[in-house]
Amino acid sequence: MICVLAGGVGAARFLAGLLRVVPADDVTVIGNVADDLVIHGLHVSPDLDTITYTLADQVDPDRGWGLRDESWQAMTMLGRYGGIDWFNLGDRDLGTHLYRTQRLSEGATLSQVTAEITTAWDLGLRLLPVTDDPLRTRVTVVDPDTEREVSFQEWFVQRHHDVPVRSVRWTGADEATPAPGVLEALIEAEAVVIAPSNPIVSIGPLLEVPGVDDALREVRERTVAISPIVAGAALKGPADRLMVDLGLEATVVGVARWYEPYAAALVIDEADADLAAEVTAAGPRPVVTPTVMSSPDVAAALARTTLAAAGVTVEGPA
Amino acid sequence: MICVLAGGVGAARFLAGLLRVVPADDVTVIGNVADDLVIHGLHVSPDLDTITYTLADQVDPDRGWGLRDESWQAMTMLGRYGGIDWFNLGDRDLGTHLYRTQRLSEGATLSQVTAEITTAWDLGLRLLPVTDDPLRTRVTVVDPDTEREVSFQEWFVQRHHDVPVRSVRWTGADEATPAPGVLEALIEAEAVVIAPSNPIVSIGPLLEVPGVDDALREVRERTVAISPIVAGAALKGPADRLMVDLGLEATVVGVARWYEPYAAALVIDEADADLAAEVTAAGPRPVVTPTVMSSPDVAAALARTTLAAAGVTVEGPA
Repeated sequence: MICVLAGGVGAARFLAGLLRVVPADDVTVIGNVADDLVIHGLHVSPDLDTITYTLADQVDPDRGWGLRDESWQAMTMLGRYGGIDWFNLGDRDLGTHLYRTQRLSEGATLSQVTAEITTAWDLGLRLLPVTDDPLRTRVTVVDPDTEREVSFQEWFVQRHHDVPVRSVRWTGADEATPAPGVLEALIEAEAVVIAPSNPIVSIGPLLEVPGVDDALREVRERTVAISPIVAGAALKGPADRLMVDLGLEATVVGVARWYEPYAAALVIDEADADLAAEVTAAGPRPVVTPTVMSSPDVAAALARTTLAAAGVTVEGPA
Repeated sequence: MICVLAGGVGAARFLAGLLRVVPADDVTVIGNVADDLVIHGLHVSPDLDTITYTLADQVDPDRGWGLRDESWQAMTMLGRYGGIDWFNLGDRDLGTHLYRTQRLSEGATLSQVTAEITTAWDLGLRLLPVTDDPLRTRVTVVDPDTEREVSFQEWFVQRHHDVPVRSVRWTGADEATPAPGVLEALIEAEAVVIAPSNPIVSIGPLLEVPGVDDALREVRERTVAISPIVAGAALKGPADRLMVDLGLEATVVGVARWYEPYAAALVIDEADADLAAEVTAAGPRPVVTPTVMSSPDVAAALARTTLAAAGVTVEGPA
């Protein structure tokens, strides 16, 4: 059994590669819910949906999120009314949010709804929200002269994550409990992978849920993280700027220091081979391999190398 | 000033005719909200929207409700998940419900949101929900052997209103207050029109809001109702069967008896001319004219005749 800690787009691409080298029913994903939002009355779970849509081969290949063959009739109508238009919800995508919202209103947990949705797409793997409770990321930004605390999506989407960040915190963390199966998946996994996601706002909130941090420390020796930073920059999203804003080094060395309590090994790109010694000094054992998932083959090879670093050998070409 | 008590499709067609003979800003519509529902987390106001879409020339001409040029991507996706699929929400239509739900969640009243929506469509008239409070129709049906109380839409849409009805009641009526402007519109109107809507489940709930029944009785002498029953049948919907189920006569005479406390005159179709004396005996003065709104011209002529019956003369051909 493989357990993957996951954010959104980067994690989804990694998982697509992973499913090429291990059976889906050997995989449990612990997904981020801290950038979930309620908008227009609908419960939207962007990271869970990005994983589902990607693995269902339904993700829009250009955007990397949302659905292919999407239309935007509802948003166009919303525009007529002057409604909130900075968070795009395609018509097909809305079907998912309508379903989730209805089921939650009926008393289903987010775990249950997520299982129903992944089953509807025949994903095979288990996708567990880290918690069924309302854990939410709050970001204090400088906008433009005064500090102001906003929701994750207000920072990420509405402000295009291009305003300086002073701090990040999570509401609901103290009262949150891990969703059913989360701690067991971590403890019982043969290998744990921290996907190439934003360490602070994608993986960070997973560690905020009481019990997860301890469990992850406990399985450090079989945990491998994949750096989302390559050559000093995030491949996608604001991880690099966010790390700098928060006083971290936006390099694989900064990532190594961040993950040192949790991961025995850190997979870094060949572009960062010269930093391998510094990664070692920070704690995790560096594993150098191509990490830029430009094709499913590269993602599959990355998955194979990552599992090997955790001591799990899978068949197929290296 | 003209005040119209309105349900959905029949009222919307009448209003389209009315706006051909009087300026829109002379018209206030008191709309039914008792078949509103929350579904998939969204607040849907079918009757208000049918009026808005019809007057905006956006209604689907074949269905008589919903929007033209509609698509159904969200519903198709919902179908994949096995979600509630008996209440169709088109993608364009969803934009309206997203907007309404968001605004209500921000603390806006239904009146305010309705005004924003009608303004966005440049309707000109005032469309007032009869109340901003949650007034809801509950229908006790025989389904198939046992009695069961369901929501209006569970009866109307899910069961295609083809199960026998034992009784109808309204929840929230006692606590409801008329929306701002409702009582004033009734009292101050030069003429009040009860649109050709279902007397029991479209006009009935308006009378359940404390204050409305009294106000309408007070202006009886300038109130004209239009029969939704023609030749013993409802032109659209289940008004005829519902009246029979509830022990009323499904004819213009039954309608006359129902509206006797409220309307000095009842507009009936030429097909019912032979029942004019019985209408008179029931109370309201019968006005015989074509009422089947097969074209905008017929609807405009009906509006003109109806206003004349209330003592309001408008220019143009009779």
